[in-house]
Amino acid sequence: MANSPSGDSMTERVVRVLETFTSDRTMQTAAEIGRRAGLPSSSAHRIVDELVAAGLLERDEDRRIRLGLRLWELAQRGSTALRLRQAALPFMAQVQREIREHTQLAVLEQDEALFLERLSHPQAGANITRIAGRLPLHASSSGLVLLAFADAALRERVLGAPLRAVGPGTITDAAELRRVLARIRRQGVVVAPGSIEAVSTGVAVPLRDAGEVVAALSTILPRDADPAPAVAALRRAASGVDAALRAARR
Amino acid sequence: MANSPSGDSMTERVVRVLETFTSDRTMQTAAEIGRRAGLPSSSAHRIVDELVAAGLLERDEDRRIRLGLRLWELAQRGSTALRLRQAALPFMAQVQREIREHTQLAVLEQDEALFLERLSHPQAGANITRIAGRLPLHASSSGLVLLAFADAALRERVLGAPLRAVGPGTITDAAELRRVLARIRRQGVVVAPGSIEAVSTGVAVPLRDAGEVVAALSTILPRDADPAPAVAALRRAASGVDAALRAARR
Repeated sequence: MANSPSGDSMTERVVRVLETFTSDRTMQTAAEIGRRAGLPSSSAHRIVDELVAAGLLERDEDRRIRLGLRLWELAQRGSTALRLRQAALPFMAQVQREIREHTQLAVLEQDEALFLERLSHPQAGANITRIAGRLPLHASSSGLVLLAFADAALRERVLGAPLRAVGPGTITDAAELRRVLARIRRQGVVVAPGSIEAVSTGVAVPLRDAGEVVAALSTILPRDADPAPAVAALRRAASGVDAALRAARR
Repeated sequence: MANSPSGDSMTERVVRVLETFTSDRTMQTAAEIGRRAGLPSSSAHRIVDELVAAGLLERDEDRRIRLGLRLWELAQRGSTALRLRQAALPFMAQVQREIREHTQLAVLEQDEALFLERLSHPQAGANITRIAGRLPLHASSSGLVLLAFADAALRERVLGAPLRAVGPGTITDAAELRRVLARIRRQGVVVAPGSIEAVSTGVAVPLRDAGEVVAALSTILPRDADPAPAVAALRRAASGVDAALRAARR
């Protein structure tokens, strides 16, 4: 009953429709959605109509479709991300106030660094990341911290795969990456110049919840800036988040 | 093909499964989800399995289900809410720094005030709102601002319906509410003591995008506090957000 003639389930079709939306493609016609989701026009139109009726998609006067506010509202419910983000936000604001550069919160998700939050200073420099964007673990400063404290199986999987260069300073040698990760575990911080963009240095520290590293807090400095104040500010913020999460659990 | 024997579409069933999650019910078993969504056990289990496979739901070691980070990631894409929130966040942080109370961003959604963001000060007082939470338009200070600038049809609909008291200061008389809304349109601000909670006063101003009121920015003060500094801080923030949205459009 729930399967189409091609054998994919209706749930998969609904998910495929939703996943045709990207940060760069926020408005589409039903026909474009159908084509991108690889669905027959009639099913695409029906699924879109039903998702519009449910509020998960919205249709404007020009009959273009976008993701609905209802989807966002739903996604906030009980999400681990939201809890962490709420605890971290005041401390991120403090870092941003002191350092006046981009400040970011990332978690490990499907072998990548997923950015949950970013505070940007109007005068801050280049920054490739965006909220709900992803970066490779071995390349971003946040990813390096998450990788350093990830379980050994994930670490070995990343170390065993090709390490693609993203910026001029990306670590692409597995032996060197292994040394860097060990150093991050010892020092609790990484300073990664040019690993994503030649003009920037990423600085990141781990955030802990009940002793476990659950996220990375980072800031992006101009390449030639002294990282010491950022390291100090990030460490203070990490202690603050740790205390806030502990207080929330009591 | 896509419809169940009871006539509801598979899309509706998927949405019903997702909507069994609330802020207070973040973890459920597949059986509980089925019961709450009014679905036969076999369909509930199948839809849950498929949503887990797609990452929209997550299953922990105890086989309990929660909303997945993938759903959150998807919901961020191209959402109007996100764009507004990003523009407003630095100015909200500034208000929170000056006023040291809860600062909130709300939009009109299905005849209620939907809260997109909240920054809380560790020492701030009581606050009933939460992110992705809703409050009635006539009761919250944010809701009053949104209602004051809403289209006339919506305003008349709210004025014509029973106005339930939420706090001791909630306006429950339609004629008085009409006068208050007119004053908000003239003055561009509302100070609403006790409308939600006896101990608090809500202060809210409209946020504009291309001249249209798109959101309300509010702060919650102790009942006896002088609202003047909050009004000034919120107005400065509103100008800042207006300029940021204008700059983003260019």
